[in-house]
Amino acid sequence: MPKINPKRLLTDLQRLREHGACGSGVVRPAFSAQDMEARNWLKSRYQQAGLDTTIDGVGNVFGRSKNSGPALLIGSHSDTQPTGGWLDGALGVIYGLEVARALSEAPETAGLAVDAVAWQDEESRYYSSLGSRSFAGKLTPEQEAGVTDKQGFPLSDAIAKAGLSQIPRQHLDPDRYVGFLEAHIEQGPHLEEDGKKLGIVTDIVGLHGAVFKIRGQQNHAGTTMMSGRKDAAAALYALANAINEEFPKTAGDRSVWTMGRAVIHPGAASIIPGYAELELQFRDRSSRVLDSFAETVQRLVVELNARDGAQIETELAREKIPPAPMDEGLQSLLIQAAEKNAAGKWVKMPSGAFHDAGVLHDVMPCAMLFIPSIGGVSHDFAENSHDEDIVMGCQVLADAATLILQNL
Amino acid sequence: MPKINPKRLLTDLQRLREHGACGSGVVRPAFSAQDMEARNWLKSRYQQAGLDTTIDGVGNVFGRSKNSGPALLIGSHSDTQPTGGWLDGALGVIYGLEVARALSEAPETAGLAVDAVAWQDEESRYYSSLGSRSFAGKLTPEQEAGVTDKQGFPLSDAIAKAGLSQIPRQHLDPDRYVGFLEAHIEQGPHLEEDGKKLGIVTDIVGLHGAVFKIRGQQNHAGTTMMSGRKDAAAALYALANAINEEFPKTAGDRSVWTMGRAVIHPGAASIIPGYAELELQFRDRSSRVLDSFAETVQRLVVELNARDGAQIETELAREKIPPAPMDEGLQSLLIQAAEKNAAGKWVKMPSGAFHDAGVLHDVMPCAMLFIPSIGGVSHDFAENSHDEDIVMGCQVLADAATLILQNL
Repeated sequence: MPKINPKRLLTDLQRLREHGACGSGVVRPAFSAQDMEARNWLKSRYQQAGLDTTIDGVGNVFGRSKNSGPALLIGSHSDTQPTGGWLDGALGVIYGLEVARALSEAPETAGLAVDAVAWQDEESRYYSSLGSRSFAGKLTPEQEAGVTDKQGFPLSDAIAKAGLSQIPRQHLDPDRYVGFLEAHIEQGPHLEEDGKKLGIVTDIVGLHGAVFKIRGQQNHAGTTMMSGRKDAAAALYALANAINEEFPKTAGDRSVWTMGRAVIHPGAASIIPGYAELELQFRDRSSRVLDSFAETVQRLVVELNARDGAQIETELAREKIPPAPMDEGLQSLLIQAAEKNAAGKWVKMPSGAFHDAGVLHDVMPCAMLFIPSIGGVSHDFAENSHDEDIVMGCQVLADAATLILQNL
Repeated sequence: MPKINPKRLLTDLQRLREHGACGSGVVRPAFSAQDMEARNWLKSRYQQAGLDTTIDGVGNVFGRSKNSGPALLIGSHSDTQPTGGWLDGALGVIYGLEVARALSEAPETAGLAVDAVAWQDEESRYYSSLGSRSFAGKLTPEQEAGVTDKQGFPLSDAIAKAGLSQIPRQHLDPDRYVGFLEAHIEQGPHLEEDGKKLGIVTDIVGLHGAVFKIRGQQNHAGTTMMSGRKDAAAALYALANAINEEFPKTAGDRSVWTMGRAVIHPGAASIIPGYAELELQFRDRSSRVLDSFAETVQRLVVELNARDGAQIETELAREKIPPAPMDEGLQSLLIQAAEKNAAGKWVKMPSGAFHDAGVLHDVMPCAMLFIPSIGGVSHDFAENSHDEDIVMGCQVLADAATLILQNL
C-alpha cells in the first residue's frame, strides 16, 4: 500500500509558505504577484511528480495524471486571506500533490489516476470560490462582469495582468472523475478539545443572511419625549436582541448566527439616531433551519414595524448558499482509512466554514477530511497544526484515495 | 408700565444674526472671530442703552444698570453651535437688552436696575457654560487647565487670541442681584403642538449617563458554536434592549434616555465581534429618577455579566448634571405677566435641554421663559420662531421684570 513521504510533504508545505510569507503568517491573496509565483511553483512541482500540468484561464493549477480514468481529483485553494495563516488551503493543495506522488510510487497503485488541483480565489478577493465555480460551470459572464476587489481593481484586469486572458478555462469532465477530496485544517477547536485527530465532514453548512436598513427621525435627545420618538438605534437593539432570543427556538445543535456589523447614524450621544443598519448572517447544515430563521426574521420585523417607531426594511442576502451534504460513499471510505490509521480518534462533523467542496458537491461526489487546528485559530497569522497531525492526515487521504479508486 | 419696542427688538436680533450668518443659520462658536465681533457689537448696544459695559476675562458681556440695586440680571448666551440656529441664545440676549431699554424709558420703572448679560460658550466648544460657570465661581483653574476644543486648540490660547488674558473675570455679587431671568426658544414641539405661546420653566432636567465598554472574544462566525462565544455585539444588543425595557418601570412622565452611539469591532458580518462600546444618556427633572436609572443600569450589567458571555464594564459619566429647579417666587411673577399678555396661552413645563440658568440656579434665584419653536426644530439652520411670538415673549419678560423689581 502507498506510503506518503512525511519529509517531502512538510518541506513542500514550507516552500509554498515562502510565497507571501509574513512573520508566521502568509499574505498571498488571489492574483497577487505572490499568488501567481506560488501557482507557477506548484505547476513545476506537479510536473516533477509526473503529472500533466496547466494553469487555466482563471488561475486554477491542474496536475493531471497520465493514467486513464476513472480519476480522483484532490486539492484545495492556494490563495490566502489578506492576512492569512499558512495552512488554510495550502494543506489540502500539498496533500493532493503528495497523494498523487505516493500512489504513483507504490506498485499496486501506480496505475490509478489521481489529479491534483489548486483552486483560485476561494477567499473571495474578487469572487467567492472563483476557480471551482468556473470549473463546475457555475460562473456566467454576467456574474463576472464588473467584479472588482475591495479597492475597485477589476477582476478582468487581474486576469490580464496575470497573463491569463487568452488561456482557456478548464471545465469538469464528468466521465473522468469519480469524485473530489479536499483536506483542510478544521479552523475550529472541536477536534483538539475532544482529543480527536481526524474529522470526516458530513456537510458544509449553508449560509444565509440579511441587511436591515432602519429609518427613524433624527432629533434632540433632551427635548423629544419618548412617546414621540422614531429612534433607529432603539429599533436596531430590539431587533437584534429579539433575533438572539427567538433563533434558539428553531435552531439545530450546531446552528450559528452573528450580527457582526451595526452602524448608527449620526452616532452622537445626545442625538436620537435617524438611521441605522444591521447585518445578520446565519449558518446551518439544514435548509429547513435556515428557512425557519428567515421566517423568524420576517415575523420579528413585522412585529417591530407595527410599534410605529423607526421602520425596518429587510434585504435578504443576494447569495444564499445552501447546505452541501458530502457524499456518503466517499465518507465511508474516508472513515475506513481513518480507523485504520487512528482507531477511535476520528469523528464525523459538519464544516461551519465554506470550502470549494461546497461549490462542487452537486456536480461530482465530494468528501472532506479535517485535521486539528491548534487552539482552533484560523484566518490569523497564529494559525498552525502539529506536524504529526499533518502527516497522519495525508496518509489517511492516501489510503482513502486508494480505497476509492480500487472500489470504483 | 414699560412697553418694549417690537421693531427695535427684531432689528437687533437681525443685526446679531449677521455675525456669522450662513444661509438661514448662524456659525458663531465661542471665541471665533464672529463671536468676538458679536460681543463687541453687543457691548456697544449695551452702551447706547445707557448701561455700564464690560467684556470680562472669559468673554462674558455685561451691561450693568447705573441704578443702584437690588438688580435683576437678564440674558442668555450669544455663542452658537457649530452649525447653529439664529435664535438659540441670541433671543434671550437681545431680550435682556430690550427689557433694560424698555424699563429705563418708562417713568415708573426708570429707577429700577436691570443688568443685561451675554454668557460665553454655553454650547461647549471648550467647556459647557464656561461663562456662567466662571461668573458663579464654579470653575477652578484645575478644571480649565488643558481644556481644548475638538481640534485640540487650547482654551487659554483662545482667550489670549481674543485679547482677554489680562482682563479680570466678573464674579457674582450676591448683594446686588435678586435673580436671573433667561428667555429661550423652546427647542421642542410642545408649545406649538398644544397651541400655547409661553412656557414657564419649572425645572431644567438633570443629565447623567454612562459609557459601556464590552470585551468579548473575536472569532470565526462559521466555526465557533453559540455556546462557546463571547460576542461583544450580542451583549451590547441585550444591554441596550434591556435598558429600553426596564427604564419605563421607574421613569417619570418626561424622562428621556438615548443610546445614540454604538460601535462594534471589527464590524464585519462574518466575524464575531471582540469589542463593542455603547453610550447611554438619560435626563429627568428628578434626582430620584436619575438615581433609579443608574441603579437599573448597574443591576442589568451584573445580570448580563453573570451569563459568562462578553463582559461589560460601566463608566458612569464624569459630569453628572443634577436637575435644576427654577425659583418658585420668580415663576409665579412670570406666570402673572404671561396671564396678563396671553391669558390661558401659557403652560408650566420642564426644560429638556440644558441652559446657563441651570448653572446659576443654586447661587441665585433663576427663572426661564420659553417661546414656541416652529416645528420644534433647533440646533439646525432651519430653527425659527414667529415674529409675533418673539415680540410677545419680550413684553412678558419686561412685565415680569417690573413685577419682580417692584415686589422685592
